[in-house]
Parts: sequence; C-alpha cells; structure tokens
Amino acid sequence: MRGVATLAETSGGSGADVVDSFKDVAPGLGRLIVAHCYGDIFCRPALDPKVRELGAISALAAQGTVAAEKPLGVHIDAALNLGATPEEIVETLFNIIPYAGYPLIEKALLIAHDRISLFDDKQVDGSPSDHRTLDMCSG
Amino acid sequence: MRGVATLAETSGGSGADVVDSFKDVAPGLGRLIVAHCYGDIFCRPALDPKVRELGAISALAAQGTVAAEKPLGVHIDAALNLGATPEEIVETLFNIIPYAGYPLIEKALLIAHDRISLFDDKQVDGSPSDHRTLDMCSG
Amino acid sequence: MRGVATLAETSGGSGADVVDSFKDVAPGLGRLIVAHCYGDIFCRPALDPKVRELGAISALAAQGTVAAEKPLGVHIDAALNLGATPEEIVETLFNIIPYAGYPLIEKALLIAHDRISLFDDKQVDGSPSDHRTLDMCSG
Amino acid sequence: MRGVATLAETSGGSGADVVDSFKDVAPGLGRLIVAHCYGDIFCRPALDPKVRELGAISALAAQGTVAAEKPLGVHIDAALNLGATPEEIVETLFNIIPYAGYPLIEKALLIAHDRISLFDDKQVDGSPSDHRTLDMCSG
Amino acid sequence: MRGVATLAETSGGSGADVVDSFKDVAPGLGRLIVAHCYGDIFCRPALDPKVRELGAISALAAQGTVAAEKPLGVHIDAALNLGATPEEIVETLFNIIPYAGYPLIEKALLIAHDRISLFDDKQVDGSPSDHRTLDMCSG
Amino acid sequence: MRGVATLAETSGGSGADVVDSFKDVAPGLGRLIVAHCYGDIFCRPALDPKVRELGAISALAAQGTVAAEKPLGVHIDAALNLGATPEEIVETLFNIIPYAGYPLIEKALLIAHDRISLFDDKQVDGSPSDHRTLDMCSG
Repeated sequence: MRGVATLAETSGGSGADVVDSFKDVAPGLGRLIVAHCYGDIFCRPALDPKVRELGAISALAAQGTVAAEKPLGVHIDAALNLGATPEEIVETLFNIIPYAGYPLIEKALLIAHDRISLFDDKQVDGSPSDHRTLDMCSG
Repeated sequence: MRGVATLAETSGGSGADVVDSFKDVAPGLGRLIVAHCYGDIFCRPALDPKVRELGAISALAAQGTVAAEKPLGVHIDAALNLGATPEEIVETLFNIIPYAGYPLIEKALLIAHDRISLFDDKQVDGSPSDHRTLDMCSG
Repeated sequence: MRGVATLAETSGGSGADVVDSFKDVAPGLGRLIVAHCYGDIFCRPALDPKVRELGAISALAAQGTVAAEKPLGVHIDAALNLGATPEEIVETLFNIIPYAGYPLIEKALLIAHDRISLFDDKQVDGSPSDHRTLDMCSG
Repeated sequence: MRGVATLAETSGGSGADVVDSFKDVAPGLGRLIVAHCYGDIFCRPALDPKVRELGAISALAAQGTVAAEKPLGVHIDAALNLGATPEEIVETLFNIIPYAGYPLIEKALLIAHDRISLFDDKQVDGSPSDHRTLDMCSG
Repeated sequence: MRGVATLAETSGGSGADVVDSFKDVAPGLGRLIVAHCYGDIFCRPALDPKVRELGAISALAAQGTVAAEKPLGVHIDAALNLGATPEEIVETLFNIIPYAGYPLIEKALLIAHDRISLFDDKQVDGSPSDHRTLDMCSG
Repeated sequence: MRGVATLAETSGGSGADVVDSFKDVAPGLGRLIVAHCYGDIFCRPALDPKVRELGAISALAAQGTVAAEKPLGVHIDAALNLGATPEEIVETLFNIIPYAGYPLIEKALLIAHDRISLFDDKQVDGSPSDHRTLDMCSG
C-alpha cells in the first residue's frame, strides 16, 4: 500500500505502533493513516523530509490538545531519525512561543526531552539511525 | 533595541507595519513584539531562518484563529524573503492536513496564494529580495 | 427539577456520576448541569434523541480538549442507551476526520472502544438497556 | 474519481464551488477533498447521510474557527438537500451550547439562518431538492 | 425575566443588541442568553461586577475565535460601564500574553481600542455612565 | 533578574517549581518565563495583583488545553496568596461558563478544589500567607 515505505522511513517504529494500536478498535483508521497521511501527503516531494517533520512538530505543539501529544512524540522521533539535532527540535518549540504562549511549549518541551533521551539511549546501544537517505514514495 | 535587525531582515515591511499599527493603541505592545518575539526568540541561532519561518507558518495555520491570519501573512512574506519557494510554502500547508483538517488549510492556502502573488509582482518590478544572508542579532 | 428525567433517560448512570462528583466541590454546578444542560437544552423536542447524542459526540470529539474526554464518554454511553449501534458511533468519529484531523479522532476512538466494551459487558450480564422509549421533559 | 458522486449528491453546488476555488491556487487540494473527504470518508455506509451532515455541523460549529465558517455553510446546505428540516439544523446548534458556549452558537446560528433563507428561496423558485435517494459511492 | 436587570446594568445597549439580533433567527437563544447567562451566572454575588467583566475579557481574548469578537466588545463596554479604566482593560489583555501568545492579544487590543474610543465619545457628549451602583438580580 | 521578585511574591513556591523543572530540559525557557512573563508583563502596575491572577485563571480555564492545567494550578495558588477567597476563585470559573461551556469549567473546578484544599491545609499548619502587600518589580 502507498505510504507504507514513507511510514517506515520516517516515523519508524513509533508510527507503526500507532497504526497497530487501532487493529482491534477500528482497522479502517490504520489503513487511512497509512494511505492518506503517509501515502497522499507525507511522501509529496516538495519539502525536505526533515523540514517536513519540524513543521509537523510546530503544528502539533501549537494545537496543544491532549490528542496531539502522542503524534508529537512520533514526529519528534521521525525528525531525529531524519537527522534533526536535539537543538533544532528544542528551537522549533521555542520558535512558537510568540504565537502559542508558554504553557503549550512547556508541555511540548517535556515530551521532546523524553523522546530525545530515548533516542540517545538507542544510539549508545549500537542501533544507529540509518534512515537519512530516503526513497519515500516507492511503497 | 535588540530585535530590530531581525525584524527588518526577516518579516521586513509587513512585520514593521504590524508593530507600527499599535503606535497609537498600545505602544508597549510594539516594543514587546520587537524585544521579545524578534529579540529573545527569533534571533536565536540553532535553527535555519527559512526553516524557522516554515515552522511559524505551520503553527499559525494549525491554530486557525482569525487573529493568526495577519501573522500568517507576515511569516509567509518572511519565508519568501528568506528564499523559500512558493512550492515549499504550499507544501508546508499540505503537510499539516493530517493534524489540522481541511478547513484550516483551505483558509491558509488562500492567504498564501495572495502573499505569493504580491511577492512575485514585486520581483518583476525590479526590487529583488536580497535578504538571504542574515546577520540577525546585531540590532 | 426540570432536567432530572432527561438526565436519567439519556446519560443514565454516567451522567449522574458527573453531577454527583461536584457535590462537595461546587454543588451549584451540578444543579446548573441538570437545570440548564438537561432541562433547557437536551429536552427540547426538535431533534431525535439518538441524533442529538451523535451530534454531542461530534462536537466533543472535535474540541479535543482534555476536559471533553469525560463528557465524550458520557454521551457515548447515552447514544448506546438510546439505541445507537457501535458502528454508528465509530462512523460518527470517522466523519469528522476531514474537519478535525487524525489525532483528535484517534483519541476519541480509543474512548469509544472502551465505552462500547463496557456497554457490551453489561448487556451480556443481563441488564439490557430499556431506555429506547423516551418521555424526556416530564422531570 | 471516487467521491465525485457523493460530493454532487450531498453538498451539491456549494461543495463543488469550494473544490473549484482551489483550481488556480493548489489543484491538488481540490483533488484530495474529493478523493479523501468525499471518497474515503463521506461515502462510508454506516451512517445515515442526514445524520452524517448534522454531525458535521456539530463539529464545525464547535470548532468555531474562521476557517470553519465556509464548510459550515456547505454542510448546512447538504443537510437541507438531504431532507433535514430547518428546525433540526437549529436544534443541532442549540444542542452544543453546553459543550461550546454561547458565542460559537450565536455565530453559527446566523450562518444557518442565511443558508436556510437561501434554500427556501430556491424551493419557491421551482427547483425542488430531489437528492433524498442517495447512491453515494458509485463515482 | 430573571437576568433582564443584570443585562441592562452591565452590558447595557450592546448586550441588548445581541439579544435582539436573534429575534427573527432563533428567539429561544435570546431568552437563554438572558435567563441563563445573565440570570443564572452573571448575577451571582461572589464576584465584584468589574472583576467579573475583566475575567470575561480575559477568557474571550484567550479563545480568540471569530465568534468571540462580538462578545469581547460587549464585555469591554460592560467593564467601562462598571468603572474599569481603559488602562485596566488594556492591562487585562497584556496579562494573558504569556498564556495565549501575541496574535490573539494584537487582535483583542484593536477591538478594545475601538470600544474605548466609542465610550470616550459618549462621555464627552454628556451621557455619563451612571451604572456604578448595581442591584443586579432584582429582574 | 527582573521578574524574580514578582514570581516569589505571587506564584511563590509553585511558580518556582515550574521554572526549576526546566533546569535540565531547557534552562533558557526558565529564564524567559522569569524575565518575560514575570519581568515584562506581570509586574506592570496598571492592574491590581489579585485581579491579574483572576484574569489569568479565566484565560487558562477558557483554553482548556492539557498544557494549561499546571499553570492554572499555579495561578490559583497565586490568587490565594494574594488574598482571593475560595468563593472568588470558584465564581471566576462559573463566570466563564457562558463563553466556554461546561466541560472546561468542570475540569477547572476540580483543579481549583485541590489547590484550595492544599492552601487551607497550609494555613491550619501555621504557615499563614503574608504576601498581601506587594512591591512586585524591585527584582
């Protein structure tokens, strides 16, 4: 299915976990996430994949809903997988303070801190991210 | 004042217009916009200026408030001034469809279309953007 | 008090639990929920009670605030009590994907899944819902 | 394309106008609206088409963004095309007062009043709505 | 009807205009605004009337929806009627910058500037506000 | 640093806890909270400190995001420190029901109940609040 490769190459395991979590609840939702979000949208070529993920982080942090917390974590993982530095992710959150106010950013920074720590732990464990070269829409 | 140079080099005329519009209403607000938004936040170095503007566009489009419409236009201008292509700006909006839904993006695309047309007109008139090289925090 | 019967006949136990939860916090709030929400609004006759609950589910899922999660559960219970099928509830959530984006719906679907499972368990236990015939504004 | 028939049979002219309005701005958006919103979502069978439109009205009114105003009008038109009475539409808006507060409903009621008036004018002019029987996913 | 006196003594003409604007659209809404908002809520005694209006301004500015703009104007009028100074109203808006960000406050300040100008014009014309002593729940 | 005294004299311990919680995550955020929120905004003189806190409570409750919950608690603490009665805080929340709907207020009331209980416990323990007289911008 279109979108499968993009999912694997960006959000990786944490994106697939979200799709899987709807297997028994509403499998149609998992299929739409892959086909529409990853297949129709995220694999469009006009935007650098890392910049795309930083844009997603900006939007999800600005929404600040409880529902945006899990996808915010998924797209922080994806940004790290695609080569964003922790500094770029933190700065992406600081950047929206003027538009969104401090409480939303405070919450998002705590989520970012957790995801970056997990990512760092995995690197040390010898499972380096090798997702930098993307061929995203072949799925 | 810290922030003046960053304002001039990114949002340019349309950012200064916003600051000026509060001259008779609440001049303290204009000062805070320059000192805090541009001086404390936007001139921090960890993020590429064009990527910073695309993040701002993502956040403002995701909020979708009527109040976000004017700053969305300002930061689309800034992204164009900093070398973003119209395709990158449009794609930045498509990118948040999965998080924010279609109505917000429809509205934002119409604003982007207007700002891009105005930018193109200015280029043809012989006033090329020369803001690509930034030394943003000297103000 | 006007609204008591509507509360009992729609949201049933889970609506009464919400009202009771404010007994020691701010009893005036519980009274306003019954008198205004159930007495002034929900017992108005122009809308089929099941359709009214599906509309409530649509609105609460679209808001996506953390505060909307408990009432979303209450009105999913009410829709089930009033004869909505699980498929109608799930489809009511899919229906707002284009307006509200995927994260809000993902969260709401997990809540719906829990409430539907609890409802199914009660049916099997021999306490069938008999709330289908409503005489809602006699309270 | 999948979704074309559903668009025509529900939102009719005012839905097509929205799609057309992106022809010169971002034609890809119009295609996604038809293929995803109408083709993937709105033509799913589990929900009565009129109830689906009343759910859309509930969600869009609850969002209350400026961007939701145009689609709110489109789906009020669709509800009327599918046989909803003006009373049902007005009641659908009253129904969300407890969740969304008065300002959002005040705004939405004024939009509903305009769309219902336009619909009534068309009926008198001899172009009756004959969209009640739907075969929505044949497109 | 309970609430009529509170409406007259706080929001005055601009509140009554809102209620009247629904006379032909949905008269039930106007009645609920008077009976519930003014009769059940705004005439409760535990809060100083001016502080109540400044709280309303804070909440409406923080929402930032297009629908909140008219009530924001109404409650700025009410605050002025109840003796709030223009400086207190402007400061009430500055106060929420940290929570709500700059765009919402920019928008709200422009609305406040208009309402304060109109209020000042009326004072000069010899129709002084004499609403300071309130007996708000006798209606 | 400007803002330190205001932080200590209003939000007291729970405000300082928030600043400290970013020490290892993003220390720059803690500095901006003190310098901008407390130094630039909260120590401006035009608004009575207690009224300022009640306005903050109004705005944060009206936002209803999960991220607003912690600052809502902090500013309820601050209002109590500055002499607001529990009745005034509860009434400040009731006051926004017409604008924000019941779910947001239900959530906020539970938070207020917890903070008021904690504050009462401290008073009984012999550590009375003596923060009533403020000299807020000397820091």
